[in-house]
Amino acid sequence: MSERGNGVVGVGEFGLIDRVTARLSYGPTVLLGPGDDAAVVVAADARVVASTDVLVEGRHFRRDWSAAQDIGHRAAAANLADVAAMGARTTALLVALCMPPELPPGWAEELADGLAGEAAIVGASVVGGDMSASPTLTIAVTALGDLGGRAPVTRAGARPGDIVALAGRTGYAAAGLTVLSRGFRTPRLLVEAYRRPEVPYRAGPAAAEVGATAMIDVSDGLLADLGHVAQASGVAVDVRRDAFEVPRQMRDAAQALGVDPYTWLLTGGDDHALAATFPPTATLPTGWQPIGEVTAGAGVTVDRRQWEGPVGWDHFR
Amino acid sequence: MSERGNGVVGVGEFGLIDRVTARLSYGPTVLLGPGDDAAVVVAADARVVASTDVLVEGRHFRRDWSAAQDIGHRAAAANLADVAAMGARTTALLVALCMPPELPPGWAEELADGLAGEAAIVGASVVGGDMSASPTLTIAVTALGDLGGRAPVTRAGARPGDIVALAGRTGYAAAGLTVLSRGFRTPRLLVEAYRRPEVPYRAGPAAAEVGATAMIDVSDGLLADLGHVAQASGVAVDVRRDAFEVPRQMRDAAQALGVDPYTWLLTGGDDHALAATFPPTATLPTGWQPIGEVTAGAGVTVDRRQWEGPVGWDHFR
Repeated sequence: MSERGNGVVGVGEFGLIDRVTARLSYGPTVLLGPGDDAAVVVAADARVVASTDVLVEGRHFRRDWSAAQDIGHRAAAANLADVAAMGARTTALLVALCMPPELPPGWAEELADGLAGEAAIVGASVVGGDMSASPTLTIAVTALGDLGGRAPVTRAGARPGDIVALAGRTGYAAAGLTVLSRGFRTPRLLVEAYRRPEVPYRAGPAAAEVGATAMIDVSDGLLADLGHVAQASGVAVDVRRDAFEVPRQMRDAAQALGVDPYTWLLTGGDDHALAATFPPTATLPTGWQPIGEVTAGAGVTVDRRQWEGPVGWDHFR
Repeated sequence: MSERGNGVVGVGEFGLIDRVTARLSYGPTVLLGPGDDAAVVVAADARVVASTDVLVEGRHFRRDWSAAQDIGHRAAAANLADVAAMGARTTALLVALCMPPELPPGWAEELADGLAGEAAIVGASVVGGDMSASPTLTIAVTALGDLGGRAPVTRAGARPGDIVALAGRTGYAAAGLTVLSRGFRTPRLLVEAYRRPEVPYRAGPAAAEVGATAMIDVSDGLLADLGHVAQASGVAVDVRRDAFEVPRQMRDAAQALGVDPYTWLLTGGDDHALAATFPPTATLPTGWQPIGEVTAGAGVTVDRRQWEGPVGWDHFR
């Protein structure tokens, strides 16, 4: 926590830090919350998992497409998913918020509500942060997590013969973003999926418990992210297209907008699904669906063929 | 670490993440460094200290006043000092970097060199981060630290009769900033103090070991920061003006610029000295100088009188 952030000078003109921290509550893993030079958090197994993600207005979010609370949920989700993808559970978030002074009063508090609300899903708390004025609205979130005594599940352990499986949804957020970028506000299912991803956080530790060999948070798009696993593990990954069902609202939107829905499903980011590889003998935990297999070689294929088109989602610019 | 940050899409167009991480090295407390969804760091006593600070161009630094390496040193120092002020030692940094695309090639690598170089002073490593394009150059750093089995030293434990002591310099960086803002580049001692603060990191844990009752990183200015201690502890603090020596270069600059040098010494930020309170019977560790005492009451005085003028340094805007 920044002294400057809490002080009577610097960004004290916002008068916001106290109002924001007054809205927060702290779980049992928080030994010292906001208000001092730093927070202190339990790291039960003498290790801490740590991940940072930054969201920049106009690049990762737009205020006319997402409310402050939605942006808070999404900023937290990106980090909570990174921690889950190691097989860990997030215990604490720290947030650096840079805001244009003309932002509406209450915006930062609503953002904090979203951040804290998403963190609460896994029992995590917002324990610290910093604020500054800036011409560009920017939110940098750091998540700390607990591996529960297990080894971290990296991207590098996939072996030929392993099952490739998915927990959570893909393509929904990308479809919602396409819908918004074309000027529509429905289907609500897709737009809401973009605004507040539904991330299967518990599936991460559950996969680690049954011996997942590699795991990744799907944020660039499934094929791109499986490509990272394939590269780190020195293997090839094949995905079965028929493992994916196109939900009705997505099919309708795809037809109306002239998009191949499999582009959303296979290359859309922002849902923060988890993809993992499991030994062929493993029983997949609840929430995990097999979608393909690991083979010897390199790269990612769909039904044994090269995917036509980009493998990853480039957000909006 | 952000998946997006490492991916082939998103900010992959910088091609920078790999170049930056290739320059980093990792100490023994880093179990898993950059390149996966998250890093894993040792938290030896089952607790982790965590602090976040954000620097925004034009507000906390200017590229015509500081080189990229200097800015890296300063961004790291702000966090390392926060962790030291809890009585802890920093083990790891995570960095979110938002950059205008027109920044010179190599700028991010030089920044990373500065961050890693400052972290190395205490044996800490840069273990993760994220990058994004942004119109506003912004650096958010999170530091993780190790209390070594000790209780954290908060701002709230000062008691009447305690000694107030200082480790490190105050006023040098503020004087350097004034010099730069008036268009000068010397005295070098002051300008360099602004560019790369010399922070007495080891004095933090050393103070904790001899039973410091409260501690704070001096970043807003000594009187403002002692004000935070006084408020959190429910006490008054008196500082002796004759405890401060005005170095020759500062006296000369103050005379030339028409500034009272005690304004720099007592209210200047950015040197990241540490201020602490100790029981009257304590033997101050090396590097700590007594500068005043804690009494019953409220607020901060200088030689028992109210300080005329602002107590804290408002940076430049």
